[in-house]
Amino acid sequence: MSTPVNEPVAAADPSINGARALIRTLVDAGVNVCFANPGTSEMHFVAALDEVPEMRGVLALFEGVATGAADGYARMAGRPAATLLHLGSGLGNGLANLHNARRAGTPVVNIVGDHATHHKQYDAPLDSDIESIARGVSSWVRTPQAPGELAAAAAEAVQVAKGPAAQVATLILPADVSWGAAPSGPVAPLPPKAPAPVDSEVVAGAVSALQSDRPTLILIGGRVAADPALLATAAGIAAVSGARVLCETFPARLARGAGRVSVERLGYLAEFAQMQLDGAEHLILIDTRSPVSFFAYPDKASDLVPAGCHVHDLVGPSGDAAAALAALAAGVKASETDAPVQDLVLPARPSGPLTADTLAAAIAVTLAEGTILVDEGNTSGLFLAGATAGAPAHDLLCLTGGAIGIGLPLATGAAVACPDRPVLCLESDGSAMYTPQALWTQARENLNVTTVLCNNRSYAVLNMELGRVGAGAGGPKARAMFNLAETPLDFVSLAGACGVPAERVDTNEGLIAALEWAQSEPGPHLIEALVPPIV
Amino acid sequence: MSTPVNEPVAAADPSINGARALIRTLVDAGVNVCFANPGTSEMHFVAALDEVPEMRGVLALFEGVATGAADGYARMAGRPAATLLHLGSGLGNGLANLHNARRAGTPVVNIVGDHATHHKQYDAPLDSDIESIARGVSSWVRTPQAPGELAAAAAEAVQVAKGPAAQVATLILPADVSWGAAPSGPVAPLPPKAPAPVDSEVVAGAVSALQSDRPTLILIGGRVAADPALLATAAGIAAVSGARVLCETFPARLARGAGRVSVERLGYLAEFAQMQLDGAEHLILIDTRSPVSFFAYPDKASDLVPAGCHVHDLVGPSGDAAAALAALAAGVKASETDAPVQDLVLPARPSGPLTADTLAAAIAVTLAEGTILVDEGNTSGLFLAGATAGAPAHDLLCLTGGAIGIGLPLATGAAVACPDRPVLCLESDGSAMYTPQALWTQARENLNVTTVLCNNRSYAVLNMELGRVGAGAGGPKARAMFNLAETPLDFVSLAGACGVPAERVDTNEGLIAALEWAQSEPGPHLIEALVPPIV
Repeated sequence: MSTPVNEPVAAADPSINGARALIRTLVDAGVNVCFANPGTSEMHFVAALDEVPEMRGVLALFEGVATGAADGYARMAGRPAATLLHLGSGLGNGLANLHNARRAGTPVVNIVGDHATHHKQYDAPLDSDIESIARGVSSWVRTPQAPGELAAAAAEAVQVAKGPAAQVATLILPADVSWGAAPSGPVAPLPPKAPAPVDSEVVAGAVSALQSDRPTLILIGGRVAADPALLATAAGIAAVSGARVLCETFPARLARGAGRVSVERLGYLAEFAQMQLDGAEHLILIDTRSPVSFFAYPDKASDLVPAGCHVHDLVGPSGDAAAALAALAAGVKASETDAPVQDLVLPARPSGPLTADTLAAAIAVTLAEGTILVDEGNTSGLFLAGATAGAPAHDLLCLTGGAIGIGLPLATGAAVACPDRPVLCLESDGSAMYTPQALWTQARENLNVTTVLCNNRSYAVLNMELGRVGAGAGGPKARAMFNLAETPLDFVSLAGACGVPAERVDTNEGLIAALEWAQSEPGPHLIEALVPPIV
Repeated sequence: MSTPVNEPVAAADPSINGARALIRTLVDAGVNVCFANPGTSEMHFVAALDEVPEMRGVLALFEGVATGAADGYARMAGRPAATLLHLGSGLGNGLANLHNARRAGTPVVNIVGDHATHHKQYDAPLDSDIESIARGVSSWVRTPQAPGELAAAAAEAVQVAKGPAAQVATLILPADVSWGAAPSGPVAPLPPKAPAPVDSEVVAGAVSALQSDRPTLILIGGRVAADPALLATAAGIAAVSGARVLCETFPARLARGAGRVSVERLGYLAEFAQMQLDGAEHLILIDTRSPVSFFAYPDKASDLVPAGCHVHDLVGPSGDAAAALAALAAGVKASETDAPVQDLVLPARPSGPLTADTLAAAIAVTLAEGTILVDEGNTSGLFLAGATAGAPAHDLLCLTGGAIGIGLPLATGAAVACPDRPVLCLESDGSAMYTPQALWTQARENLNVTTVLCNNRSYAVLNMELGRVGAGAGGPKARAMFNLAETPLDFVSLAGACGVPAERVDTNEGLIAALEWAQSEPGPHLIEALVPPIV
């Protein structure tokens, strides 16, 4: 981009305020959706939405919905959305899904309103230290102190958010910086930053490993998992060199299904992941991190790399993943056509009572091509990957940071980004209850999201983890903490409360019919699937 | 207390682990309720609940419910509850109501699980910097690194939480510190810390002001507002000296109603508060802070103390409020019987269509003596204070820190603390949607909470604030951000989803009948009151 940096692009307008300059700068930089839950200190930002028609404001009733939707939006749109949160408490409410976005490597322009600069000294009731809360999830935090600094900060926020190493950039917006006159106006987009160059020594080492006769494993993630061509190249490299290829456990976005290469994911359970990694003497990491156990367990390893295995960190999030992969492919003379693509293979159409296993099959047999599949099914989603591996081509979005309560917001944002694609969200009862307000935004925006809500009336994963951490089977008080059955949640009513049409099913026939019903009309739907816990 | 500090009180038991020593220490120190939303790293804590029968675990489906309930519990029980949250993301979800608890001066023992100490180095997906997030809401943060340190840290957490200057004490609990052997066992309670002594010079200055002929205003809050006898003493001081007495805008707990002295509260709107404070030449602060505007507004003052007014800060949260008040009373020869008590005065029984005004009257005429009244009615609750001033004696709990989403959790915790008292929660639609999961905990625990959900289908306060901040009337996009009417929330369905019986009313007759129905049977109820916005 050749536009001069930080020079006003609009004619000087003495009536323009900080908020208007901010929003215009965002829109000029390609950020034209804002997931918002505003309060008093954000009123000038909200008022300025009418001054900049290109900016779409999407209202959320809870900040975790706004931040999770911004994550889902960017994963699918390939560019950041903005958020609009209300002071430190609003940021706190949005923190869990910002954590997930950080782990996903998602670009987010996270805007947090604050008191006016001259008001901070009074430590008013809602005042708190926003920067400290923001820092853990944001690589960049800035609080402009005057309206004239705001647009330049916004341009930088967008630049930083986009990466390399896409990330959450937090722009704290004092009320007076928003309402004050900013006659210098908006600022032009900053040019993208160059990624770190490919390290040819690491490439050479990885090529040697692939060309050796030693067991070698390629672990891919990040941008490689999201892109069918890059994924095919990675699989091609494995195919020509006799290596195995795996995808990280929870990719932000994974291209999969018929017509694409099929890459198995590393297991969530450390024991299972260790079996998959067992025997590898070389591990090549391509835009992913060295595998570690999700949680610690007494007497179990945290580092899952086999003893003595040589790790080749080919490219990280701030590097040029496509170039690194191309260099590796050139080294072993592989191309994206060297790996076989997945055929269309569907499981048998299930019938009878629902289980987690048959639920996955029912989803697979009804999955439309181009679906965005959001998976926060947790234990109820255990069979989803297998059942849908040969389904029509689709994109899978995962819970990247382990902070549950992302599914409904992620689906919401993905649907805003891709209004013409169906979004299917496999959600679980426990996780859904962190951010149920997302259903209302889906209704309000008439988004094409179908939620399959697996209700096993249990924190089933904790029933499993209680034993895995060595805490035994648990006494009655402990078990009661995982049992949601005595006060059963009714998700059909919950959906209805938020304006989303819903049905409850407990058979495969019922589920398939409901999925077809949901696909037959626009707008959101929820299907409460009563499934027994797998543990 | 004469028990030696930090010495084991139980016989050494080699089988005891950190979690069990922790919970036993908490119980011995009087902390016997834990509002919990646990995850994998907290499994040993949960398992240990069965080892210490005196500890009650109350499950929340969202952390903001757990933290808000801990606040409500402590405001009514007068002693802290514990929370149990899952890593940094769980803490983030609980942060808004911890902020409110901090502003309320509520003691909370905030327990946040973390990865095992040896697992931290791997920066696993759910890892984050918990201490940084905690610090803004906690005056004390501690992360024990070994099981043997845990019980002593817990005893200190309880001591610090109780005050003086009651506060949130955050104990971060690494999984291995929880599961590791702690044969030295639990630790005895630490003695309460002494409050700061009364400053006799400040007392003398305040006495002089009261004895002068200059306009003097006494502003009370904190522990004075909560205690009918202290409140009566403050009012007595005003009565004998000709001063006025006001209560801070949002007291954590205010004793009010028939048979108690009636103290007007400082207004939320700065313009209104300034009228109340106008003319005061002396302002005596008793366990409250100097009044400031809640938000900043262009061209309006932040500091609400009249120009030239002399502020006497008699006692703060770390001081001995009762002793300071007694010294002041002695100085002007006042007692708690010098102020008249409020007679039983009820508004006329309202009929016809509901408005915010008549809704308050309907609540007043049905209010049972001893009710715990939780007010997060916001604009719909504007008339509550006036209507209930002469209602039967009750305690009012307010939103102290401005982070909306406290009402339903606060009511939940108050009901756990006081199972024999009715809890009436005036809630608004916008605020309710931050923490609706509290309804489920009310159902699960069969708590006597009646929620009057004022549904005006609007972020009405923002409609008002848009104009107040000088952002004009707003264009169609701005106004759409405050309008919840086109996708109306259905709170009867929402309550049903969570197992709470509910009715919808739009007349005063309907509301009164529903309030009588809710009082006639145990357990939670929700009444969705359709009221027009006041703005």
